[in-house]
Amino acid sequence: MEAIDRKEIIENILYLIDAEDAPALKSIIIDSHPADLADILRDLDDEERAYLFSLMTAETASEVMTELDEVTREDIVSDLETERLSEIVDEMDSDDAADVVAELPQEIKAEVLANIEPQDRAEVERLLVHEEDSAGGIMALEYIAVYEDQTVDDAIREIRRRADEIDEVFYIYALDRGGRLVGVVPLKSLLLRNPRRLIRDVMFRDVISVSTEMDQEQVANIVRKYNLSAVPVVDKNQRLVGRITIDDIIDVLHEEANEDIQRMAGISDEEVLQETSAVRISRNRLPWLLISFFGELGSALVLSRFDATLEEIIISAFFIPVIMATGGNAGIQSSTIVVRSLAMNDTGATRLWNRVLRELRVATLNGLIIGALLFTVIFFWKHQTAFGFVSGLAIILVMINSAAFGAIVPFVLHKLKVDPAIATGPFITTANDIFGLLIYLGMTSFYMAHGR
Amino acid sequence: MEAIDRKEIIENILYLIDAEDAPALKSIIIDSHPADLADILRDLDDEERAYLFSLMTAETASEVMTELDEVTREDIVSDLETERLSEIVDEMDSDDAADVVAELPQEIKAEVLANIEPQDRAEVERLLVHEEDSAGGIMALEYIAVYEDQTVDDAIREIRRRADEIDEVFYIYALDRGGRLVGVVPLKSLLLRNPRRLIRDVMFRDVISVSTEMDQEQVANIVRKYNLSAVPVVDKNQRLVGRITIDDIIDVLHEEANEDIQRMAGISDEEVLQETSAVRISRNRLPWLLISFFGELGSALVLSRFDATLEEIIISAFFIPVIMATGGNAGIQSSTIVVRSLAMNDTGATRLWNRVLRELRVATLNGLIIGALLFTVIFFWKHQTAFGFVSGLAIILVMINSAAFGAIVPFVLHKLKVDPAIATGPFITTANDIFGLLIYLGMTSFYMAHGR
Repeated sequence: MEAIDRKEIIENILYLIDAEDAPALKSIIIDSHPADLADILRDLDDEERAYLFSLMTAETASEVMTELDEVTREDIVSDLETERLSEIVDEMDSDDAADVVAELPQEIKAEVLANIEPQDRAEVERLLVHEEDSAGGIMALEYIAVYEDQTVDDAIREIRRRADEIDEVFYIYALDRGGRLVGVVPLKSLLLRNPRRLIRDVMFRDVISVSTEMDQEQVANIVRKYNLSAVPVVDKNQRLVGRITIDDIIDVLHEEANEDIQRMAGISDEEVLQETSAVRISRNRLPWLLISFFGELGSALVLSRFDATLEEIIISAFFIPVIMATGGNAGIQSSTIVVRSLAMNDTGATRLWNRVLRELRVATLNGLIIGALLFTVIFFWKHQTAFGFVSGLAIILVMINSAAFGAIVPFVLHKLKVDPAIATGPFITTANDIFGLLIYLGMTSFYMAHGR
Repeated sequence: MEAIDRKEIIENILYLIDAEDAPALKSIIIDSHPADLADILRDLDDEERAYLFSLMTAETASEVMTELDEVTREDIVSDLETERLSEIVDEMDSDDAADVVAELPQEIKAEVLANIEPQDRAEVERLLVHEEDSAGGIMALEYIAVYEDQTVDDAIREIRRRADEIDEVFYIYALDRGGRLVGVVPLKSLLLRNPRRLIRDVMFRDVISVSTEMDQEQVANIVRKYNLSAVPVVDKNQRLVGRITIDDIIDVLHEEANEDIQRMAGISDEEVLQETSAVRISRNRLPWLLISFFGELGSALVLSRFDATLEEIIISAFFIPVIMATGGNAGIQSSTIVVRSLAMNDTGATRLWNRVLRELRVATLNGLIIGALLFTVIFFWKHQTAFGFVSGLAIILVMINSAAFGAIVPFVLHKLKVDPAIATGPFITTANDIFGLLIYLGMTSFYMAHGR
C-alpha cells in the first residue's frame, strides 16, 4: 500500500519538476509534513533534489533538513550557498543546528557561524564542545526553567514568553538561585494549581537527570527504564545546562540497535542505509571480510597439518562444513544473548557466572541431540560406526567450546571497556572455526592412530 | 560503577530479608523508584522475591509489576493470591492491566476480572479483543478528549476531573459530536489561550492517528518518523478509541530490534533475556541448529560427489573454510543491510533494483581483492599457480553469488509477507555454503579434468 502511494507521489513530483511548475510544487510543499518531504527528497536525484529544496522557505527547509538522513543532508548542504544555509540553520533548534554545523567543512563552518544570529551562534558553539555521542552532544538548549521561589504564574508567563521558540514543552525545570536543578513540574500541574503558589511547593523533587558526559546509550537506557518523556542534563555542579527530548532518544535507540546488528554482520558503524557509493560501502565492509579471510587461513593451516588424516579417511573432509556451521551457530547464539544482556544492562554482576554456566548447559543439551544425529547419519550413510562415534562426540565438544567462547568473550570485552558487540561478528566465528577443526580433526586422527 | 552499587544494594536487601526486617525493607521500598525495585526483584530467588513483593502496597506493586520482564512477572503472579492480584490489577493503567490479565491461566483470569471494579473490567475486556502486536493491543484508554465545540476552560476542567487517573497528559484530543477525531491540542496551548475560546479554534487539524489493527512495528515507525510523543488510535469510523504513549513505543522498538538481532543469530523470538531454564532455551534454539545441521549435510553431499577431486588435490580441502566463511560473510553483509532497510521502510520500491545492483558491485569489488589475496597465498604457500588462479576466481564468484542471494531473498520474503529478518539467520548462510562449495569444487574439478 504505502510503497504504491509513495511511488505515485514521486512520479507526480518528478513530472512537476520536469515541467518546472514551481507554484504547484510549492503548494505540495505547504501541504506536506516535513518528514514526508524528507522521504521524497531521498528518492530524487541530485539535480531534482536541489530544485525542490530551493522552493522551500527557510523555515520548512530547516524542518526538512532535521528529518533527513546524514548522506542526503550532506548532499544537499554541499550544494547550498552559505547565505541560504545560514538562514536555514538560524531557524533550527540548537541541537539540530549544532549537528548540521558540526558536519560542515572548516571554512564553511566559520562563515555560517558568522552569518547566524549572535545568540544562536553562542548556543551552537556551546553545544559543539561536547562529544557527539554524549548527553551533551545530543541535548538541546530549548528548555524552560524557573527558580523554585517563583510562582506558578511566573512559570506560565515564562512559557508564554518563549512559546514561539520552543515547540514541545512537557515539563518545566525548577532551579535554586545557584542555577542547580532541584525539581521538575509537569505542565499538567501548572494548569491545575493556584497561580500564586510557589514552584517549590508544586514541584517533584525526585528529578532524574543525566550528566553532560554520559554516553548516549546509557542516557537512552535511563529514559527507557524510567519511562521519561524528556530528561534534563546537568553539569558537574548540578547546574541545568540542557534537555534531551524523547524523539532524540528514539533516534539513539534506533542507531544503537542498527549498530549492534551491523556489527554482528561485520559492517562498520559508519555504513548508513542510504549510502550509495559502492566504493565507499566496499571499503567499509572489507576489514571484516579480511578478518575472516586471514582467520580462516588459520583453518587452512590446521587442515594442512591434518592432511594425512584427510587423505586416509576422506569422508572426514565431508563433515567439515557441518562442524563449522553448527559450532558457529551455537557460538553466535550464546554470544548474541550475552551481548544483548550487557547492552540492555540486564545482567547484574552477580549473575555473570550463572549465565555462562547456563549457556554451557544449553550447548551440552543441544550438542547431545546434534551429536546423536551426526552419528546416525554417518552410520547409515557411510556405515562407519567408529568414525561416526568419534565425529558425534567431536561435534558435542565443538558446540560446548563455541558456546563457552561466545559467552565469555563478551564479558571480557565489557570488562576491558570494549564494545562487546564486536564479539558477535566474524571475529568469534573465525576463532570457533579454528578451534572446532582442531577438536574434530585432532580427535579423528587420534582415533586413526590409536583406535583401530 | 553501577554494577557495584546494585550489588551492594542487593546484598543489603538480602541481609534484611534474611533478618525478616519488614520495617527497614518497607522504607527502602518507599524510597525507591518502581523501575529500580523491578531490577532488584529480578536478582532475587523465588522465595526472597515473594517476601519482598508482599511488603509492597498494591499501588507500588502495580507500578513495579509494569516494569518487570515477562518471565519474572509470571513467576511472581503465579505465587499470588487471586485477591491480592486483583487489588494490584485494579491500580494499573488499562493497557498494563490487560497485558497482565492476558497472560493469566483461564480460570484465574475469570476470577481476577470478577474481582476488579466493573469499569476497569469493562476496559480490560475491551482491550483484550485486539491482537497483542497491533495498535489496539498496546493502546491505553487513559486519554483526555473534549468536543470541538467545547471551550479551553472545559478542557482544563476535564483534565482536573481526571488528573488522578491519568499520569502523563501532553495532548488533549478534539472530537466532533459523532466521536470522530478531528484535532489535537498540546497542553501548552491550553495554558496560553483565552479560556473562553473554542477548542475548534485552537486545535491542530492535521492530527496523525493510527488504526486499531495497524501492526505495532508500523506504529513505531510512524511515531519515530513524525517525532510524536503520543499517537491517538481510531477505529474504522475514525472514532477515537485509545492512545499510545511514547514509552510503549520505545518498548516496541526495543522488542523489534531484539527480535531482529535474535533472528540473525538463529534464536526464536520467544527467548527472552531473563529466561533461566536451560531446557526451555535449548528447545528454542534447537530448530535453527537443525536447519544448519541438515542444510550442511547438503554440503557434505556436495563434498562427497567431489571426493575424487579432493583426494587428487588435497589442498583444495584446505581452503573450504576460507570459501565458506568469506562467502558467508559477504552474504550476511548484503542481507543485513537489505533487511534493515526494509524494516526501517527506508527503501522505496523504485530503489529495489538499485540496491541489489549496488550489493553486486560491492561484492565484486571486495571479491577482486579477496580473490587476489587467495591467489597470492596459494602461489607463495603451495606454489600452485593454476590452482591458485582457479581458487581466486572461484572465491570472487562465490562472494557475488552470496551477495546476490543475500540481497534478493529478503525482498522476495517481503513480497510474500514473510518477515525478511529470517533471511539473515542460518537459512541463508547454509544455502550460501552449498552453492559456494558447488562453485569452488566444480571449478576445481573442471580445471583438473580439462585444465592440465
